[in-house]
Amino acid sequence: MKKKEIENASKLKIIPLGGLEQIGMNITAFEYEDSIVVVDCGLSFPDDDMLGIDLVIPDITYLKENMEKVKGFVITHGHEDHIGALPYVLRDINVPIYATKLTMGIIENKLKEHNLTGTVKRKVIKFGQSINLGHFRIEFIRTNHSIVDAAALAIYSPAGTVVHTGDFKVDYTPVFGDAIDLQRFAEIGKKGVLALMCDSTNAERPGFTPSEKTVGKTFDSLFTEHKDTRIIIATFASNVDRVRQIINSAYKFGRKVVVEGRSMVNIIETATGLGYLNIPENTLIDIEQLKDYPDEKTVIITTGSQGESMAALSRMAGDIHKKISIGPRDTVIFSSNPIPGNEKTVTNVINKLLIKGADVIFQDVHVSGHACQEEIKLIYSLLHPQYAIPVHGEYKHLRAQAKLANELGIPKENIFIMMSGDVLELDREAAKVKGKVPVGGILVDGLGVGDVGNIVLRDRQHLAEDGILIVVLALDAYSDQLVSGPDIVSRGFVYVRESDELMDEARAIVNESVNNCLDRGISDWGKIKGGIKDVLGEFVWRKTKRRPMILPIIMEV
Amino acid sequence: MKKKEIENASKLKIIPLGGLEQIGMNITAFEYEDSIVVVDCGLSFPDDDMLGIDLVIPDITYLKENMEKVKGFVITHGHEDHIGALPYVLRDINVPIYATKLTMGIIENKLKEHNLTGTVKRKVIKFGQSINLGHFRIEFIRTNHSIVDAAALAIYSPAGTVVHTGDFKVDYTPVFGDAIDLQRFAEIGKKGVLALMCDSTNAERPGFTPSEKTVGKTFDSLFTEHKDTRIIIATFASNVDRVRQIINSAYKFGRKVVVEGRSMVNIIETATGLGYLNIPENTLIDIEQLKDYPDEKTVIITTGSQGESMAALSRMAGDIHKKISIGPRDTVIFSSNPIPGNEKTVTNVINKLLIKGADVIFQDVHVSGHACQEEIKLIYSLLHPQYAIPVHGEYKHLRAQAKLANELGIPKENIFIMMSGDVLELDREAAKVKGKVPVGGILVDGLGVGDVGNIVLRDRQHLAEDGILIVVLALDAYSDQLVSGPDIVSRGFVYVRESDELMDEARAIVNESVNNCLDRGISDWGKIKGGIKDVLGEFVWRKTKRRPMILPIIMEV
Repeated sequence: MKKKEIENASKLKIIPLGGLEQIGMNITAFEYEDSIVVVDCGLSFPDDDMLGIDLVIPDITYLKENMEKVKGFVITHGHEDHIGALPYVLRDINVPIYATKLTMGIIENKLKEHNLTGTVKRKVIKFGQSINLGHFRIEFIRTNHSIVDAAALAIYSPAGTVVHTGDFKVDYTPVFGDAIDLQRFAEIGKKGVLALMCDSTNAERPGFTPSEKTVGKTFDSLFTEHKDTRIIIATFASNVDRVRQIINSAYKFGRKVVVEGRSMVNIIETATGLGYLNIPENTLIDIEQLKDYPDEKTVIITTGSQGESMAALSRMAGDIHKKISIGPRDTVIFSSNPIPGNEKTVTNVINKLLIKGADVIFQDVHVSGHACQEEIKLIYSLLHPQYAIPVHGEYKHLRAQAKLANELGIPKENIFIMMSGDVLELDREAAKVKGKVPVGGILVDGLGVGDVGNIVLRDRQHLAEDGILIVVLALDAYSDQLVSGPDIVSRGFVYVRESDELMDEARAIVNESVNNCLDRGISDWGKIKGGIKDVLGEFVWRKTKRRPMILPIIMEV
Repeated sequence: MKKKEIENASKLKIIPLGGLEQIGMNITAFEYEDSIVVVDCGLSFPDDDMLGIDLVIPDITYLKENMEKVKGFVITHGHEDHIGALPYVLRDINVPIYATKLTMGIIENKLKEHNLTGTVKRKVIKFGQSINLGHFRIEFIRTNHSIVDAAALAIYSPAGTVVHTGDFKVDYTPVFGDAIDLQRFAEIGKKGVLALMCDSTNAERPGFTPSEKTVGKTFDSLFTEHKDTRIIIATFASNVDRVRQIINSAYKFGRKVVVEGRSMVNIIETATGLGYLNIPENTLIDIEQLKDYPDEKTVIITTGSQGESMAALSRMAGDIHKKISIGPRDTVIFSSNPIPGNEKTVTNVINKLLIKGADVIFQDVHVSGHACQEEIKLIYSLLHPQYAIPVHGEYKHLRAQAKLANELGIPKENIFIMMSGDVLELDREAAKVKGKVPVGGILVDGLGVGDVGNIVLRDRQHLAEDGILIVVLALDAYSDQLVSGPDIVSRGFVYVRESDELMDEARAIVNESVNNCLDRGISDWGKIKGGIKDVLGEFVWRKTKRRPMILPIIMEV
């Protein structure tokens, strides 16, 4: 490109629509003139105060407003926080999806559940392969992660090349497939990289994340040590390599394997079907066949490593699993670490298993899928980006990576800790956050997408805290006289049968308030309701120091 | 005692009324013939599913049924999980309280809040001093812990001596007062110990818990390193030694100190008043005076180290603190570790502080107050108990201590992992769990103690999950004809203004159901209500995949 062309060239815009200041909901738009490419489309799980919410998806108003520009979704790997919002977002923006084979297999399972397979275009991409999407060319580069077939993306635009690592680690000895394609990173780096968007999850941790293969060795020694008990191993359903290593150890030690938990069964079927998992014959057995083998000749691979209340392992621990009960002849292994926020539920499951007499192993049978500091430094050193944009992680993780980038020689003004919605405009000359697009979490509750918002959530929090008092009364339509009630019905407030006196007094006070209003000729329902709320609220607070929701309902007869 | 007497002698009963299989709510009854002594009387904090509950206190039915036997409460130290239930339990069982000076000071603050100071007998006990309570003699032995004046108890009974460590660590170089009285432990051990009840909290951790004094050195180096910013330090209010060390460092570095957060102010006043905290003159300043000093000459000691939403630090992080706002000229230090279950809320506060530009230090500025494995082994080796009863901790911690005890030569059949409510009968000849007394958590919500039970909690969970639909209708008292409604009011279900269609359909369906009933001459309100619940529940589930609470209310006019 000649100098003149560069001067006239447009800038590249990078717009994270989610995923920053939070874990999950990764989705980033790359825009150059009339082309938008979207990297990932993940969901996040509800915060503790989002009562009753199943999941949260990104607000894609910006994409809808620029619908004609959007060329496709390019997906780095098959975890929920990178693909989970696709079935919802595709209803509004039906553009093609590009992903590697296993990633696409997992996406297709989702599309099936939502009856979308017929309407969504999909293209499986191989590592090293590139696709052209408007002004962009996107190349898929092999990385390693806690799910097979994870890709980094080189996003070539007229304004320069951006490399997005996705979630990754450097595993020189992966269990399946090849190691991360460091040579390709180096080649791209040699040609010049405008910006690097790199996984920050483990940016606070020094050193190098150990190879997945080390867990296999741990399994072998645990199988040797616990050769007289049944072995139950809980891990993440999507970690196909972990499952493979468990099956390998089981096979080596002459044990049959049962797979338990719906999501685990699904992913193993998908991975096996696509050739990512090769299970030795006569190794898998059905859960019903467990009784045909002695305990010490079986292994159960199960979901529930995060203490999820309905997962198989939690049901076993809680004695509500229909087919497996835990006892002193069980060794239960957590091949996982608790995700932040799940520590307590995981510990609860561990305690329950221990009380049943099982041996429980919950430390050092897991390795992370994310790059630690030395790996992050390696990627920076291969790519030598002009700008650094730490992604994937809480703010503290992004800050930790920013510090690393600075130590590696990237000047502070070239490091951008972005917020979701920020529009970063950049080219070789300059980079600057210019403006903001609408972003946020859309709450999904059952079939409802976005019909539960702040008002509904606030009501749920209020109801959860102190319950509800409903005051019903009927007024004569003509005379405005009280013809029935006021009655008080409560839920979640107090155990009514033991609180007769309190409820009687409450009724009397409400009755007085209503009659006062009516006697004074007040027939404005708003005022009557306001009066009820005031006197009843004050009375209940004085008597109980609680503030239940008070809901007056007036009927006209 | 001669052989014959021993044969005729009664057995000692040890009855934990709480505190096992859980963290918190420590309370244990020791019974010998007509004497009961109760060690500690703590509360626990509500589990996540106990919506709206403030705190949980132990069920003391067993003590009430044996009221005439109960001689007193003997308290090991002043933490909530050891004293917090006293104001509630004393209403039913008003017996004297025995505790060391600071512990009693903290208890008295509680009694004042509950207007109980005039009616409860209290006696301050010194270390080394004994009290006689019926058949028991109780000796207070000095230990170290994260609160000053913590005691272990030697409980002498005709059936033998039980040593209860309370919460403890071994600190050879405590910040205030003396080290744990290991010589006395040895003397008692030499005379023969029937059973040891030892703190298990850190029984999974190898090694030795570092001295509290090491944190003082950390403060000094942090003050040196951050000499150009304001320093804000969050820690546990009750850790007077920690506060002392912060003040010492501040004094040494010529900084003024502000104490912020109600519980922190209270405990410092109590500790200062009783001579446990000696603050250099002209060091403490009022929060209003902060503006008179440059940032780098001030330190703020604050509550909120656990991310508690209403504590001072959380208010600063959330920009709702009236007097302190956080910026790039602040260094915030968490002198604490997150208590299990609080990890996520603590991280949220850290991220918010970082986003405001503050430097945040949240690792390695804390030491535990509980004994690690080598300290536990030391106590066992000094006491040589016949029986081991691990206490204080989750089941996994108790199991870890049981393993240690076994390694130290105590045979497995002499180690008892008890459950709350178990009655352990023991003497020199034998020990056995015989029977069970009623135990459980009584929920405290506002002023209500025990008026929120499972039914109310289930309702709150239901309301929290999907909200409520209230169906009101009025029937004529004589003709059983519908004179008003059915109307549907919802809260926490769906944002009604955007769901007109759904609500209209729902109303139509309910209307049909009610009219069907009335047309068929059904006037049984139960049946009408049942019909409404069925059709509306089914409709809502089909349309939304949600299950709100459905509450039909019929008025008679």
